[in-house]
Amino acid sequence: MARMSAAPAAALGIDLRVLATSRQESAAQVVSDVCLGAHDDEHAVLAFADGCDVVTFDHEHVPGPILEKLEARGVAVRPGPRALVNAQDKAIMRRTLEGVGAPVPAWRIVESSAHAQDFAETVGYPFIVKTSRGGYDGKGVWRVESASHLDAVMSQPLPPGAVWLAEAAVPFTQELSAQVARSPSGQTAAYPVVRTVQTEGICSEVVAPAPGLDPDRAVEAQRIALDIAGALDVTGMLAVEMFDTGHEIFVNELAMRPHNSGHWTIEGAITSQFENHLRAVLDLPLGSPNAREPAAVMVNILGGDVGDLYSAYRHVFARDPGVKVHLYGKEVRPGRKVGHVTAVGSDPQSLLLRARHAADYFSGAINE
Amino acid sequence: MARMSAAPAAALGIDLRVLATSRQESAAQVVSDVCLGAHDDEHAVLAFADGCDVVTFDHEHVPGPILEKLEARGVAVRPGPRALVNAQDKAIMRRTLEGVGAPVPAWRIVESSAHAQDFAETVGYPFIVKTSRGGYDGKGVWRVESASHLDAVMSQPLPPGAVWLAEAAVPFTQELSAQVARSPSGQTAAYPVVRTVQTEGICSEVVAPAPGLDPDRAVEAQRIALDIAGALDVTGMLAVEMFDTGHEIFVNELAMRPHNSGHWTIEGAITSQFENHLRAVLDLPLGSPNAREPAAVMVNILGGDVGDLYSAYRHVFARDPGVKVHLYGKEVRPGRKVGHVTAVGSDPQSLLLRARHAADYFSGAINE
Repeated sequence: MARMSAAPAAALGIDLRVLATSRQESAAQVVSDVCLGAHDDEHAVLAFADGCDVVTFDHEHVPGPILEKLEARGVAVRPGPRALVNAQDKAIMRRTLEGVGAPVPAWRIVESSAHAQDFAETVGYPFIVKTSRGGYDGKGVWRVESASHLDAVMSQPLPPGAVWLAEAAVPFTQELSAQVARSPSGQTAAYPVVRTVQTEGICSEVVAPAPGLDPDRAVEAQRIALDIAGALDVTGMLAVEMFDTGHEIFVNELAMRPHNSGHWTIEGAITSQFENHLRAVLDLPLGSPNAREPAAVMVNILGGDVGDLYSAYRHVFARDPGVKVHLYGKEVRPGRKVGHVTAVGSDPQSLLLRARHAADYFSGAINE
Repeated sequence: MARMSAAPAAALGIDLRVLATSRQESAAQVVSDVCLGAHDDEHAVLAFADGCDVVTFDHEHVPGPILEKLEARGVAVRPGPRALVNAQDKAIMRRTLEGVGAPVPAWRIVESSAHAQDFAETVGYPFIVKTSRGGYDGKGVWRVESASHLDAVMSQPLPPGAVWLAEAAVPFTQELSAQVARSPSGQTAAYPVVRTVQTEGICSEVVAPAPGLDPDRAVEAQRIALDIAGALDVTGMLAVEMFDTGHEIFVNELAMRPHNSGHWTIEGAITSQFENHLRAVLDLPLGSPNAREPAAVMVNILGGDVGDLYSAYRHVFARDPGVKVHLYGKEVRPGRKVGHVTAVGSDPQSLLLRARHAADYFSGAINE
């Protein structure tokens, strides 16, 4: 994420400093001003922030106490710790969302599998069990099918500071993401609502705008995201991941940063999520979030058997001079997101075929 | 130019190394791998090239002997010195272009003002006098109005290695630029032909595609550029600047690198000139050069009285959420190109008004 912020930062003449654990990290490869250190090392974060006008994030894992210390020193932390905690802790997020009237699935904090069993009696099997903290890319989330499955899941250790959550399984027809940018001055910009496709808990594809989504429901999704951004005083980009049942929308997760569901905006929107995140956290007027073409699709490149991604360019580029490829400079590991492919145009189905072909060729799933 | 190559290099996962005289240079600010040194210092260039797969340029000023030494060491120099000399020396370029049948104005190497006076008798006043080397942005070019003016111009010292050229003044109705990319394998891609507007010898505006240009003449301009790229064995981007008289096209200048007339391609084309330059010099298949919208305009931001460009963002972005701004991180000096503004859409005239307003606000020419 930080790597993809380097391009709009350079275009706008904004000096970007990155905190990274090594020079080989994805963003550190392409940014000249790198501070080495860990995001959970208070000394490293404070030293990094020294001289920065604004500190922002491409993940939610910087501990709240460190963010509060930064704020106490007068550093502009955007989003601030009181907003960010809602992206760090799903129990706090659920409570906050209920408080602002956002639609959420039935949920409960559960302290034992017996307690979760009570919940199961109201919503039935299968239902969802999550850890409130420490999950990502499908980790820390289980679709529980039976009492014995529930016992097995909840016998695992919780991450530090986490509690167990039980949630009703929402019978969704598609998953949506509604992204908005919000500045400290309160200006907001809402991107078109997109369809996200998850494969084994990892985002695999995004289609913008979400195909077949009723226009009124799209506006409702944008309104929900704008309401959350305002109520939580979010600054920067907010992604609200939602379930669409065909009749109703429920909020699933929040991310307060540029998000995988918005990578299509680099080519597909007038202003990318990365540029608007920078503009928002700097309290500059936001750029237009409107789409440039009738459709855009993004397909993630997941690590496969092939360690050398570069060699795929000959085939991919010769076959399709119109796809746009982003590689992250990450070491290839099976299932790891190592890049993405975007295609823009008019017909989402043909764009998906093109982008999937390219992504599958990079991952080694196909070789012709 | 090198600064704007950083974004596609990061997207494609290509490691970029820059030779710069200081860390404060425009490109050096945004690239992590910087070698300090001068482009005409043989030792610095050779040390810089050590470990590079390909060496390329964002200007034409690296001396030929250094490039030949690089090639002798087995470094891939793209474009190569035999192509590049045509962008370094206008006398060589004119002779080469005549050799390949490209249309050029009547011209002659002149050794004295008496000799140039002979030329004037065939083409009449005013005509053009140039130095074959060392000119840029209107420097080294004079529109000579009279014999006494001619004497004054030619009494100036010539740059090292340069000769005087006399050329017929072409009564053009517009200036055009035809850009093509060409790879070592010989693949080519031709961008839409654009109108360039020069103010006091400096490119001020570009409109893509060139408004009112006859489609047959546009194809002719692309064909001329492709012919030149092939005949000269250009690798990377080639810009052919042309005069359009309304009846005929004449080639004015060549640039073998990303060029100011192609900045609009960052937002306006499927593949930017910066990405296709990288793809070409790496001998990767080229990306589509097609326009994404019916029209795109680019207006340069020239340095004015205001040293702090950043403060203009509040007004510029609040007034127009759709313009795209690129600042180069250069110290502001009057008349210096310090950034540009791009607007894409359907009506070039309204796009120009928007982009000019933003550029004029940055330069301080207007303040509301």
